[in-house]
Amino acid sequence: MASNPYEQNLDKCPANHQPLTPLTIVARAAEVYPDTIAVIHGASRLTYKDYFARCRRLASALSQRYIGKGDTVSVMLSNTPPMLEAHVGVPMVGAVLHSLNTRLDAAIIAFQLDHANTKVLIVDREFAPVMREALKIAKVKPFIIDYHDQEFPQDNERLSYNDYEEFVQTGADDFAWRMPDDEWDAISLNYTSGTTGNPKGVVYHHRGAALMCYANTIATGMQRGAVYLWALPMFHCNGWCFPWSVTTVGGTHVCLRWVRAKAMYDAIIEHTVTHLCGAPIVMATLLNAPDDEKREIKHKVAFSHAAAPPPEAVLGQMQDAGFALTHLYGLTETYGPAVLNEWRDEWDHLPKDENIAKRARQGVRYTALEALSVRDPETMEPVPADGETIGEIMFRGNLVMKGYLKNPKATDDAFRGDWFHSGDLGVMHADGYIQLKDRSKDIIISGGENISSIEVEDVLYKHPAVAYCAVVAKPDEKWGETPCAFVELKANAQADSDTLIAYCREHLARFKVPRHVVFAEIPKTSTGKIQKYVLREKAKAI
Amino acid sequence: MASNPYEQNLDKCPANHQPLTPLTIVARAAEVYPDTIAVIHGASRLTYKDYFARCRRLASALSQRYIGKGDTVSVMLSNTPPMLEAHVGVPMVGAVLHSLNTRLDAAIIAFQLDHANTKVLIVDREFAPVMREALKIAKVKPFIIDYHDQEFPQDNERLSYNDYEEFVQTGADDFAWRMPDDEWDAISLNYTSGTTGNPKGVVYHHRGAALMCYANTIATGMQRGAVYLWALPMFHCNGWCFPWSVTTVGGTHVCLRWVRAKAMYDAIIEHTVTHLCGAPIVMATLLNAPDDEKREIKHKVAFSHAAAPPPEAVLGQMQDAGFALTHLYGLTETYGPAVLNEWRDEWDHLPKDENIAKRARQGVRYTALEALSVRDPETMEPVPADGETIGEIMFRGNLVMKGYLKNPKATDDAFRGDWFHSGDLGVMHADGYIQLKDRSKDIIISGGENISSIEVEDVLYKHPAVAYCAVVAKPDEKWGETPCAFVELKANAQADSDTLIAYCREHLARFKVPRHVVFAEIPKTSTGKIQKYVLREKAKAI
Repeated sequence: MASNPYEQNLDKCPANHQPLTPLTIVARAAEVYPDTIAVIHGASRLTYKDYFARCRRLASALSQRYIGKGDTVSVMLSNTPPMLEAHVGVPMVGAVLHSLNTRLDAAIIAFQLDHANTKVLIVDREFAPVMREALKIAKVKPFIIDYHDQEFPQDNERLSYNDYEEFVQTGADDFAWRMPDDEWDAISLNYTSGTTGNPKGVVYHHRGAALMCYANTIATGMQRGAVYLWALPMFHCNGWCFPWSVTTVGGTHVCLRWVRAKAMYDAIIEHTVTHLCGAPIVMATLLNAPDDEKREIKHKVAFSHAAAPPPEAVLGQMQDAGFALTHLYGLTETYGPAVLNEWRDEWDHLPKDENIAKRARQGVRYTALEALSVRDPETMEPVPADGETIGEIMFRGNLVMKGYLKNPKATDDAFRGDWFHSGDLGVMHADGYIQLKDRSKDIIISGGENISSIEVEDVLYKHPAVAYCAVVAKPDEKWGETPCAFVELKANAQADSDTLIAYCREHLARFKVPRHVVFAEIPKTSTGKIQKYVLREKAKAI
Repeated sequence: MASNPYEQNLDKCPANHQPLTPLTIVARAAEVYPDTIAVIHGASRLTYKDYFARCRRLASALSQRYIGKGDTVSVMLSNTPPMLEAHVGVPMVGAVLHSLNTRLDAAIIAFQLDHANTKVLIVDREFAPVMREALKIAKVKPFIIDYHDQEFPQDNERLSYNDYEEFVQTGADDFAWRMPDDEWDAISLNYTSGTTGNPKGVVYHHRGAALMCYANTIATGMQRGAVYLWALPMFHCNGWCFPWSVTTVGGTHVCLRWVRAKAMYDAIIEHTVTHLCGAPIVMATLLNAPDDEKREIKHKVAFSHAAAPPPEAVLGQMQDAGFALTHLYGLTETYGPAVLNEWRDEWDHLPKDENIAKRARQGVRYTALEALSVRDPETMEPVPADGETIGEIMFRGNLVMKGYLKNPKATDDAFRGDWFHSGDLGVMHADGYIQLKDRSKDIIISGGENISSIEVEDVLYKHPAVAYCAVVAKPDEKWGETPCAFVELKANAQADSDTLIAYCREHLARFKVPRHVVFAEIPKTSTGKIQKYVLREKAKAI
């Protein structure tokens, strides 16, 4: 191949090769849409020119504190302007943005700060109390900056003498920000929720984040003039990379400090929101709002939801309320969504149950993901595309993380056989769409047979009295494990354990029917995921 | 930096790093939209499943002839299905697609075949006669395949015993196509029109072509269900990369063998075309059609035009005819368009002449282009953003070619100072939009003063009698050069040389006024570019 003329004297140089990074895309928005509103927060507004100038000031201020390549800047912030500024200003100096889940407890925060070796920490005063505890435990001594939200003042005692606004003002708005040396350089760090053991630090690189700028735009159909409501926490997989994606089309970011129904409806109407994302819990918040908080939506609002598909009734109600739904799927390790249920027009005309069955599927790969597969994790052979054989969902390509920080064993394990092992179990349908069946740790093994907890939950959700449910394994001397259902009933609805068990018998093979039904509130994480490990402990204790 | 934890044990592997290539994007379309119509040609239809299967068959057939990495497959094809198939099937075996301009003469074709060292040559029978002459001149002896278009039969004698359809059928539709070894690998070769000396072979790589999939989609707002009319020749910068971009959104390619008004209007109405691209000549073809060929367009059609902006009247007529215009700009060296006149809503409300002035500007960089600048080619300093100071338009980033094939001197020259030198002269406006003033070789230098031929043409176009015009330098003993205008008058319009010169005096500085006005047909290239070098020869002879 030495003689291949297409490889002679055709090398990379700065004229024809630059690192892929969201930074050049954000810089373009500031050049091209300088007077467009980039950020709305309460009564405040930032144009793209001002937003980008503030990002540069933040970068400049960080550089004056000698923050640079490979340093970690941790933030504990709500969906407020500083969070959007950090997504640009931190990588502008080559540093890595570490976003803390705002509902974590002090011990886990301390673990993350130490593990990430945090140099600078920006904290919203709402979270000062828990952070104060965390800093007592942590070994690192970061430079601390308090953010005081002028739009939604918080009266907690501050952690430091450093104020975010003053800090930003110490920077220069014409700061010469740096391109990454290489598109493989880290841009952000997000810890998995880690239901067992210590959380793992997922590292994203500039290349993947830049490709998500395009991939999200195409997946959700965002165009010039898009208005995006920040219902999804930005601390969650960098808000599925939408802090960069919305900016790609010169869209407007509408901040949302708290995910409350009134604030969402008001924002949707007043700012003509076109897009938002969220877990099913956001849908529930919207639908269960008191009538005086709801508002009639007359324009098209695209709602991209992820995690387990919500029950049929919720999908219908959301559509009735004016939302066009798109079902996405991904993990922290895949920059948020890397799979979407690409809807086919002809499915609109299917009978309702078949339509809902199509909606429940996770779907196909994003354009920027190179491969998606369901495989036997032992043999690495793809399962047959029969919609029934369960295997592990695996990803390959440029939307897969760089790896886990300081955890080569976990990284190697996740990438064994040259595929990213999601830990999620699913099936491949004949048409190439995947469907999630369970987290591998959530599968119930009873008498040697695998039971998908989701399959049992789907049946329970069809019972008219069930509002929420979760099914977990309960240890059993004879069978190894048996399914145990936790159920929340709808207001004013009634059903007892025997009724629900009988209902399941009608719709499930006998070995899949829950042996116990427990009526109790179902614990969820801040991102709306049901905390099954808590329920497993409860089930064990029954 | 050895201690940077974000660079330890976080290496690339197949799970998290794959070469960027349009091939994975096209493969996705076949997986996700198998039953969507991918290609319409006359009465024939290909679904995405069938289109992709045919691409694989073509690749398989090529591999059976030992075509592989670094080999050139040349094609001389109209905008027909084999051209779309070649854009995928050829790179599937690691080979490079070389598209010949179908209006070239035998000598230049022969030069290109020899320079590209063509191994396989696919020729539409419409072009068999000129190719027969070319093959007599050329030293290479490629394997020749004739394409006989069943929809539009051509009766020229064939060049070989090999028929395209039969050749494709020798391949396997489940052929295991290969990913590029590296995203920097060449995907295609396009020769510049080369008005002086031999044409240069511009090499594109998989990375740039993949990024254009996203960048074109975002620039033109193509979405799911897009229907694209192939008015732009695919041999021209790989059809500005739209063979891959349209497929990215699962759109439908509507082939167009000849750019004729009736066929275009019929296709637009019958297939509900949403997008097309073309040089101003395509607009003229549409607008100057006889009334019985025109059809009323009731849906929105996005027309992306490039090259010099058409006269005001044409812009207005196109909008009246139902086309939404977007002005793009680029060169063969930038994968086609890498700049767009990103329109701001507030410009809609400007007075007409200011509105047109905004429309005439080339604009801002594509999202996937990292930098665009107007610089003094000697000092490499950016010109002031004053809309007046002329400099050379320069590009930097991932939408710039790999280089010129077997021409390191030209490549080095084009990339000197780490920017791609376009050879186009322009200005930078205060708002960051660039405007083309001239090709550097088209500038007229009179008494030491630079005269933009475009500026003089703009004035002439405002005269009601002028249909087409072109201004070039005429050698002059006293002034060095003086402007010489070539003019085509509108049907039934009258104006003589003195009238037009007087008109120019009213609107231009005296030194810019043409000394000669010649009434003659203006020669154009196949892509609608005016052949100023021909006119310069004529002017010299006056």
